[in-house]
Amino acid sequence: MSVTAAKGFTAAGIAAGIKDNGNPDLALVVNNGPRRAAAGVFTSNRVKAAPVLWSEQVLKSGQVSAVVLNSGGANACTGPKGFQDTHATAEKTAEVLGRGAIEVAVCSTGLIGVPLPMDKVLAGVETAAASLSEHGGEKAAIAIKTTDTVHKTSVVTRSGWTVGGMAKGAGMLAPGLATMLVVLTTDADLESEVLDKALRAATRVTFDRVDSDGCMSTNDTVLLLASGSSGITPDHDEFAEAVRQVCDDLGRQLIGDAEGASKEIKVEVINAATEEDAVEVGRSIARNNLLKCAIHGEDPNWGRVLSAIGTTRAAFEPDRLNVAINGVWVCKSGSVGEDRDLVDMRYREVHIVADLAAGTETATIWTNDLTADYVHENSAYSS
Amino acid sequence: MSVTAAKGFTAAGIAAGIKDNGNPDLALVVNNGPRRAAAGVFTSNRVKAAPVLWSEQVLKSGQVSAVVLNSGGANACTGPKGFQDTHATAEKTAEVLGRGAIEVAVCSTGLIGVPLPMDKVLAGVETAAASLSEHGGEKAAIAIKTTDTVHKTSVVTRSGWTVGGMAKGAGMLAPGLATMLVVLTTDADLESEVLDKALRAATRVTFDRVDSDGCMSTNDTVLLLASGSSGITPDHDEFAEAVRQVCDDLGRQLIGDAEGASKEIKVEVINAATEEDAVEVGRSIARNNLLKCAIHGEDPNWGRVLSAIGTTRAAFEPDRLNVAINGVWVCKSGSVGEDRDLVDMRYREVHIVADLAAGTETATIWTNDLTADYVHENSAYSS
Repeated sequence: MSVTAAKGFTAAGIAAGIKDNGNPDLALVVNNGPRRAAAGVFTSNRVKAAPVLWSEQVLKSGQVSAVVLNSGGANACTGPKGFQDTHATAEKTAEVLGRGAIEVAVCSTGLIGVPLPMDKVLAGVETAAASLSEHGGEKAAIAIKTTDTVHKTSVVTRSGWTVGGMAKGAGMLAPGLATMLVVLTTDADLESEVLDKALRAATRVTFDRVDSDGCMSTNDTVLLLASGSSGITPDHDEFAEAVRQVCDDLGRQLIGDAEGASKEIKVEVINAATEEDAVEVGRSIARNNLLKCAIHGEDPNWGRVLSAIGTTRAAFEPDRLNVAINGVWVCKSGSVGEDRDLVDMRYREVHIVADLAAGTETATIWTNDLTADYVHENSAYSS
Repeated sequence: MSVTAAKGFTAAGIAAGIKDNGNPDLALVVNNGPRRAAAGVFTSNRVKAAPVLWSEQVLKSGQVSAVVLNSGGANACTGPKGFQDTHATAEKTAEVLGRGAIEVAVCSTGLIGVPLPMDKVLAGVETAAASLSEHGGEKAAIAIKTTDTVHKTSVVTRSGWTVGGMAKGAGMLAPGLATMLVVLTTDADLESEVLDKALRAATRVTFDRVDSDGCMSTNDTVLLLASGSSGITPDHDEFAEAVRQVCDDLGRQLIGDAEGASKEIKVEVINAATEEDAVEVGRSIARNNLLKCAIHGEDPNWGRVLSAIGTTRAAFEPDRLNVAINGVWVCKSGSVGEDRDLVDMRYREVHIVADLAAGTETATIWTNDLTADYVHENSAYSS
């Protein structure tokens, strides 16, 4: 269902020849209105890809008629020519759709530092526009895959209105957004300010707390488009909650498909003095390579959890820390707790609870284990 | 030569049975004076092992008569009993040497969260004391190994005085000191304040810029002991430079023996606005898992360098960044530079230069690649 689950949208996904292997690599999502409100959240990396620089400008108006996305090349670190290429892609899309280029957002994903084959991209835009369909959401989701093993879509339907979306991302998932492209659509009748508020609230507790390998991308983009075609203006909180649910679901799918991962690790920090403390501690644990290796080896190595907590500025006393792994409190009061042999780590999901004993705040960060497959996949990516 | 290269020191390394495999696991270094000045630098991890908490107190007096070190157990996260064990080890060492316990520093390394077998440790102290020798430095260096494949020693001799030392460390090397234990000795006749200044200056630009896997240990300790037995008081700057040289050499040996590494990577940041900026950028590059995988695959993936730079707060303009890998400027002005196929990455050492074009400051961080062997070694460590 993806981006065409909500009424008022058409989409397409085609093989434009950007990828050498002939797989689908160009997607188009079109908002047919009546409203064309939009909001966007972008990578906080200061080295931003050309499509991010362009789309940030597009979103300033709060109006998006179409999103054109390509896999097979990030168009990042490609200089002034890269920006011209993004602009030309938006112009071409606008031309074939009969819109203004400044209403066309552009997303790219793939290898950094390689110019896009613009003849193929521009021809692909024409092909994609010709195959736009109310049932094209699935194909669009497939066309944005890079190292993803599966395409990711999610839909939440409420009384008379829908939020749906697609995501790509498998490696380089980190706070400040992962290497992810996400397009969400809704037929709810809402203004861009409402979309913006809902999207920022949702990404803050979902995509921004998905941390696969601590690396932050140059291209991350999350867009939310509203067509208004349901004619319904939902309660803002109810809408925000629906957006959060879709983001949460897509974020979990990203972690589930992280490069080379064999475990999905939920790091839950409890009893923190502040939410910021909880997030900082959760990220520190989630980024600890030694712990991630231990989890891969099904070793409940809680010493590495404490070691990670100790590098943060969060409020805590070392001798009051408690850690549970899969329900067993292996560390109590900063020291040896229940028998670590009781921890059952055979399953794909691993749940770590870090109790800071310093307050009442909580946060959950999702990550995955560090595996030899991750090393293999990422040592061979561009060569 | 190690810690007994300088006059006035004896040392021993023996197998006390702390390690199951019967390898040497207990070392003793004794300062026979006439001076017993000392300085120490410890992990900045807030979760500190019992021996670190103890030795920090010992060093406050600026006097150390002996250092007792064990491998086979970190005595970290072991609660009040762990501190009692460290204290008992210092007491026993003081007793057999005829000194005060408060002049005995203790260092431990190995798995976190496991109590030490104190009967073996205390018996081992007696055995070690009985085998103290002016030629015992090598054996002491061997006894502190954990996953180290080789023992590490270094000596610098100047006119009439010497600085020598030993180090252990192979994984968990990160700023704020690695999982490293280092004992340096000198026969120069200097007060503890001079030692402290020289040691802090040296560690700041050596061990503190060695970042193998971004993880910070609970046990890191670097000690410098002066016997004064050469009767020579060197120029303070000349002494500080000798200490820096020994630390630099030992730090390089640590990186060279990092767990599972196949490449040693020198990350040199140039033309930074401040030294802090240079260090922050260097660390960000050195900690980027994706880049470390790429280097392992001999792939000069400069996009990952830019992506890492972009996550820092350092002063730079994205379109002025330049990156060289092994002498080839693969990125110029934030975009594609010289042909990446010109980069020869067959050798063990890889040299990355990141030019921020924002000033005149520089810093060098050493790291290594991320390999499947690292994953294997660290997923099986405690199980």
